[in-house]
Amino acid sequence: MNVTMKQVEGGVCAAAGFSANGLNCGLNPDRNKNDLALIWSEKECTAAAVYTTNKVKGAPILVTKKHLAATGNKARAVIVNSKNANTCNADGEEKAQMMCDLAAAELGIKADEVIVASTGVIGQKLPIEPIRDHVQELARGLSPQNHGKAANAIMTTDTYAKETAVSFTLDGKTCTVGGMAKGSGMIHPNMATTLNFVTTDVAISSEMIQKALSEIVKVTYNCLSIDGDTSTNDMVSILANGMAENTPVTAEGEDYDTFRQALYQVLMTLTKMLAKDGEGASKMLECTCSGAPDQDTAIIIAKSVIRSPLFKCAMFGEDANWGRILCAIGYADAEFDINKVDVDLASSKGTIAVCRNAAGVDFSEEKAKEILEEDEIYINIDLHQGEASAKAWGCDLTYDYVKINGDYRS
Amino acid sequence: MNVTMKQVEGGVCAAAGFSANGLNCGLNPDRNKNDLALIWSEKECTAAAVYTTNKVKGAPILVTKKHLAATGNKARAVIVNSKNANTCNADGEEKAQMMCDLAAAELGIKADEVIVASTGVIGQKLPIEPIRDHVQELARGLSPQNHGKAANAIMTTDTYAKETAVSFTLDGKTCTVGGMAKGSGMIHPNMATTLNFVTTDVAISSEMIQKALSEIVKVTYNCLSIDGDTSTNDMVSILANGMAENTPVTAEGEDYDTFRQALYQVLMTLTKMLAKDGEGASKMLECTCSGAPDQDTAIIIAKSVIRSPLFKCAMFGEDANWGRILCAIGYADAEFDINKVDVDLASSKGTIAVCRNAAGVDFSEEKAKEILEEDEIYINIDLHQGEASAKAWGCDLTYDYVKINGDYRS
Repeated sequence: MNVTMKQVEGGVCAAAGFSANGLNCGLNPDRNKNDLALIWSEKECTAAAVYTTNKVKGAPILVTKKHLAATGNKARAVIVNSKNANTCNADGEEKAQMMCDLAAAELGIKADEVIVASTGVIGQKLPIEPIRDHVQELARGLSPQNHGKAANAIMTTDTYAKETAVSFTLDGKTCTVGGMAKGSGMIHPNMATTLNFVTTDVAISSEMIQKALSEIVKVTYNCLSIDGDTSTNDMVSILANGMAENTPVTAEGEDYDTFRQALYQVLMTLTKMLAKDGEGASKMLECTCSGAPDQDTAIIIAKSVIRSPLFKCAMFGEDANWGRILCAIGYADAEFDINKVDVDLASSKGTIAVCRNAAGVDFSEEKAKEILEEDEIYINIDLHQGEASAKAWGCDLTYDYVKINGDYRS
Repeated sequence: MNVTMKQVEGGVCAAAGFSANGLNCGLNPDRNKNDLALIWSEKECTAAAVYTTNKVKGAPILVTKKHLAATGNKARAVIVNSKNANTCNADGEEKAQMMCDLAAAELGIKADEVIVASTGVIGQKLPIEPIRDHVQELARGLSPQNHGKAANAIMTTDTYAKETAVSFTLDGKTCTVGGMAKGSGMIHPNMATTLNFVTTDVAISSEMIQKALSEIVKVTYNCLSIDGDTSTNDMVSILANGMAENTPVTAEGEDYDTFRQALYQVLMTLTKMLAKDGEGASKMLECTCSGAPDQDTAIIIAKSVIRSPLFKCAMFGEDANWGRILCAIGYADAEFDINKVDVDLASSKGTIAVCRNAAGVDFSEEKAKEILEEDEIYINIDLHQGEASAKAWGCDLTYDYVKINGDYRS
């Protein structure tokens, strides 16, 4: 199937009927950095979400789950703060609920129509006053133009805001999917990742939107690892308000596939942005595992390589130490024949074969150096034992990762 | 049971009947760094070993397994080189066999009585000439005094040689267990770790020595993580020559328990040495998980904390960011109730409670800083849901880890 996907501006406000805003309410002492965001849909939305599998769950996740259950997966708004994760606090759920109450009162909706999320330091009490004192200003500033202010508000150690959107045609109607995400540490998603908010004007049932989200998250966010730490506050949510007026998508078929493709495009783009901006990163790494007996095996192997600290350090050093790639393939928790494995290293400067049948081959160190000096490095693994493939994304391990995380709380 | 264990000198030569030697044969261009070692027992030994679970297995591991199978777990000597792992090479097994042949010819024994191991860069052909040209000199220099030369020869990025030994009484006879190990990167053992050679003069059956080794490795080496990378060449071997003349240990009972305790002492000491000297480490971290429903759960949780890059960075920064500890407990792959978890941080400067019932408690940041400035940091987790406990060991993540691994091959 070939559907035309057009990259468009507007992030979480690109789809019809969505507006957003972001401001600094004082949780972050840096007044130039937003720390509170709101997303709003003119019409009621069908909602879906996936959450961290960490047993320690941020209080906002517990409240969001409760709200979606109460409304039968309907929502109108998202409120989110950065700088404080509101996790491991005795009064966490109470505070998360207060955030929803405050937003709902301002927007004239019910509190359980609000999705809530927080990101930042774990285990420090969330002061509610700064949020209460700024929610009116936040709501009054809602506008389709303010998507960037919202994207800025969810950044923590990110060096730039992450937004993307695509438009496409479904059932003769122009539809749009857009999203924003935050990085850049504690990123080793497992069933969900980081904070990601997606909006669309597609009309789609709650069953089909949850199915699409879960399927796409598996091959995008869940194939990303910055540091191997699965966060306590990971959440991807999607709101679909139906304002594109397409015939609602309620089953598998061509329309579902088109929507799924648009969602893949948005989540994959955000995933690569997160990888590129991983804490301290100097290079984006994309590992493709092909020739696998099944997709799960391909995912496990690609992620194992992307996670290896030794391999990540070698990439920082621009050193073609491919033995570390083989080592990480070898300890991946999957069943396959190691002896057929081929590995190539590639970038915009070209491709070199470094390993055939799990053994080294001669290559030009000069050429390898030239390839590895680039900002985006591709590790291509062929298992030669099937037709399945998958990609995983990550970044190199640098001095700056250690620096950023040596004293994160202050 | 309280058996007196006395720390003694002599490393792998501390037990009666063992001698060793090490020299620089030229694999390592630094002539002041040994790269080839030999261990020798006057009498035939019962041998046991555990190996890496990595699918990529160093050729020496394949040859050692074959030899122990051929002799019914008997051995007389160990030959080992550093600087080159002899892994992922088409001629790897042939070269590993040649190392055994050369040692056997010099020692007047059969080649399959030799255990062989290699460590260093993966995927570069092992030049056999330097080994062939120096094996005579190596064998002629065998002496109980040369244990330090052998320990030096297996070092890679280690900053000091790791040796230890204990003596104790068994059946009225003085017995000794001693060992040496190498660190310091690609350390995330799984059923075995790194290169570790243990010798003893205890008389013990091959079944019981294998049992003791497997049991003790599970709670020592396998609870160590420097960087989450499970090496391709991990091996722990033990040689028991029976020269203490105790009544052979052939079943469980008091003598077996005493031997097991001595073996624990030796392997635990080497494990802590490896943690302390992890690549780039400035601090040794010991995480104890108690109050667990079973030992496996305690091990999984303690290792999860020790492996977390974010937590390791916080320790480098001397920052009591305990939320990262909770996060790592929460994503540990085990079943337990997170809500009962308590966490303390400790060092020789004292102890502070940082978390009770999975929520933060007030503590003095000043006191925390004082505690975390020490070289050895203890993280004490109480799950409050059982009687089992386990420890895991590791180190902080520092600029130097990145530096060491950015360009390891050169």
